[in-house]
Amino acid sequence: MDIKEHILKIGADAKAASRELARLSTRKKNAILEAMADELDAQRALIQQENEKDLASGREAGLSPAMLDRLELTDARIDGMIKGLRDVAVLNDPVGSEISTWNRPNGLEIRKIRVPIGVIGIIFESRPNVTCDAAALCFKTSNAVILRGGKEAIHSNLAIAAAMQKGGAEKGMPAKAIQLIPTTDREAVKVMCQMTGYLDLIIPRGGESLIKAVTEMSHVPVIKHYKGICHTYIDIAADLDMGWRIAENAKCQRPGVCNAMETLLVHKDIAETFLPRLGEIMTERGVEIRGDETVCRLIAEAKPATEDDWYEEYLELILAIRVVNDVDAAIAHINQYGSGHSDAIVTGDDKARNAFLAEVDSSSVYVNASTRFTDGAEFGMGAEIGISTDKLHARGPMGLEELTTYKFVVLGKGQIRE
Amino acid sequence: MDIKEHILKIGADAKAASRELARLSTRKKNAILEAMADELDAQRALIQQENEKDLASGREAGLSPAMLDRLELTDARIDGMIKGLRDVAVLNDPVGSEISTWNRPNGLEIRKIRVPIGVIGIIFESRPNVTCDAAALCFKTSNAVILRGGKEAIHSNLAIAAAMQKGGAEKGMPAKAIQLIPTTDREAVKVMCQMTGYLDLIIPRGGESLIKAVTEMSHVPVIKHYKGICHTYIDIAADLDMGWRIAENAKCQRPGVCNAMETLLVHKDIAETFLPRLGEIMTERGVEIRGDETVCRLIAEAKPATEDDWYEEYLELILAIRVVNDVDAAIAHINQYGSGHSDAIVTGDDKARNAFLAEVDSSSVYVNASTRFTDGAEFGMGAEIGISTDKLHARGPMGLEELTTYKFVVLGKGQIRE
Repeated sequence: MDIKEHILKIGADAKAASRELARLSTRKKNAILEAMADELDAQRALIQQENEKDLASGREAGLSPAMLDRLELTDARIDGMIKGLRDVAVLNDPVGSEISTWNRPNGLEIRKIRVPIGVIGIIFESRPNVTCDAAALCFKTSNAVILRGGKEAIHSNLAIAAAMQKGGAEKGMPAKAIQLIPTTDREAVKVMCQMTGYLDLIIPRGGESLIKAVTEMSHVPVIKHYKGICHTYIDIAADLDMGWRIAENAKCQRPGVCNAMETLLVHKDIAETFLPRLGEIMTERGVEIRGDETVCRLIAEAKPATEDDWYEEYLELILAIRVVNDVDAAIAHINQYGSGHSDAIVTGDDKARNAFLAEVDSSSVYVNASTRFTDGAEFGMGAEIGISTDKLHARGPMGLEELTTYKFVVLGKGQIRE
Repeated sequence: MDIKEHILKIGADAKAASRELARLSTRKKNAILEAMADELDAQRALIQQENEKDLASGREAGLSPAMLDRLELTDARIDGMIKGLRDVAVLNDPVGSEISTWNRPNGLEIRKIRVPIGVIGIIFESRPNVTCDAAALCFKTSNAVILRGGKEAIHSNLAIAAAMQKGGAEKGMPAKAIQLIPTTDREAVKVMCQMTGYLDLIIPRGGESLIKAVTEMSHVPVIKHYKGICHTYIDIAADLDMGWRIAENAKCQRPGVCNAMETLLVHKDIAETFLPRLGEIMTERGVEIRGDETVCRLIAEAKPATEDDWYEEYLELILAIRVVNDVDAAIAHINQYGSGHSDAIVTGDDKARNAFLAEVDSSSVYVNASTRFTDGAEFGMGAEIGISTDKLHARGPMGLEELTTYKFVVLGKGQIRE
């Protein structure tokens, strides 16, 4: 069997499994999730042994310490996966819930009901724990899942998937509900992207180049989890203490994640008071500043920013700063250079606040808070498969509900159309 | 300016207009829709004159009478467009409505709010009234729209769009809110499909080949309005009188539309009683029957069906009939050969009904009613832009709500993440 046939077989098996999954009760699904957690725990040594193979190849291939760290399945990370499975087991199951119900004058009753999407493909990079987390969320929502991880984590991914399959099977999980593509050949991704008959959705998780490649190649619908070029705008009517605190948090609390601030915009009439102290705070925290002319004048440590800086997702301790004329200029900057992820205004003025909330075209828009809150858990969704930067189907943090679609159930007593 | 530049300019203008549209109040949008209706009425003669040019070219090109009929803008059809605009004006505006609101323990208030999608491309075929209907729904939901009609209706489409633009502009509609691509060059569609920076969604409306071509070419998300291979399954526990009535209605009331029945499935234990009378009814109505062996034995007029018949969307007075062993076989047939559109079961048995509703993977599943009800107006949605056969974002009849997305508005008092 060549790779294409092999992947198509995986797709057909997933489609068949998705029919079986639609029949599982919530109670049964939860028992399966608990059994998967137990089995991961039982196979801890084996999983770490397989993980060691990946780490050894990684060291040999000269992976960076950061990459090797992401790859490593420490005890704490395995505990995290196990806890994740048990947490998903106790979350509400959206499948089967009624979104709304109404009656028509002819007596038809229409129920709009949440149902699984069907078969979901997850294409991801180095972190092997995604195998567990993504599979758990797809399974809880009765979707079959096809996982395709990076080649540097292949042994770890296979070991995790095998443990989940074994634990699940003991409690009656359909055998092909969770499948991991065992080959690291890039051809496999291409076949997945063309498998419109079997796959209903692809979610790529990883760096920009992976997401771009999948989006351009795919005939299957894709929900992108793209970069976060997040802004904080300090308005003329801002509480400056709040502005310093929020800017520091948004930039420094965890700079390597998508909801961290990359660009700070400051109203021109408060630049003289706001920027010098901001410069001190950021310099103390080790942040490199790149700014426009005014910024460079007011902050000694600042370097001149280029046009490219406004487009940059640094993911590290670098901050671009620009002085703007007013809230409209801030909105225009964000809509031009941003990535539609998360953007905040700090202001006490209702007019500026309302314009910002209405016109900034991003998944999450904030007033007087740090952009770092854009996250399924922080929003109270319980779990997240990622943060969509697309506008269709799901936008912003994607939880269990976003892994479902709906159907219309129409109940009649013999009605025909006149 | 070459075609590509021209289309990209249209895209950039639409994107800019979408920002302005986000600021219009519902009251203002409704006044604009009324003004567009008035202007269509005022320009009736001009529109019909332009329509006559298309009809003349169509006759010359040898279009079928059915095609010419679809193309013609009779007085009644212009009345229909005008009424459509006024109807959309009185519908509820979903933009700005709150889907839900909640508070987090840290005091953050999160509001999930409906917002426009942005810029929508509609690619359609012969009927010029789509220009008006689709533009009205996109405008009401504050989306900018780029329309691309078929070459056979180009003069009609341009005249309708010009009237809407003129009427709308008088009441303050942004000039580029509604744009019709003035060239019929096929290159224009290709450029639209690659315009990911400007277009948020493409909705192709027309035949299978158009939808396939757009889907395969597009890097912009597409919501397909694909074919309807709709089934009615007559269960062993069916009220046979109801079965005959529903089957006749689903097949004959308007056979040329996507929610008409194409295949009838009959439980083997009632075939002997159900099929002969069904054969009489269908023959009286001029329906050609293609069936399996049992069907051909029980209905004299039936011709043998081939495997291809189960995949066929006839859109005319032809009906495929198959005898099945039980409800599970009916479900398996529908999931294999159907198009995920609309499927019905006629039964008095709760177990069969529940299995059918849960396992048939279609946008609309019916118990004891005709599939002909799958329609925005019949479902009580007020208007529809089409019927999605996709599962993401919108499934089944798409009304105004489905032309919106959402954003999270997060209101704080200085919260930062610990």
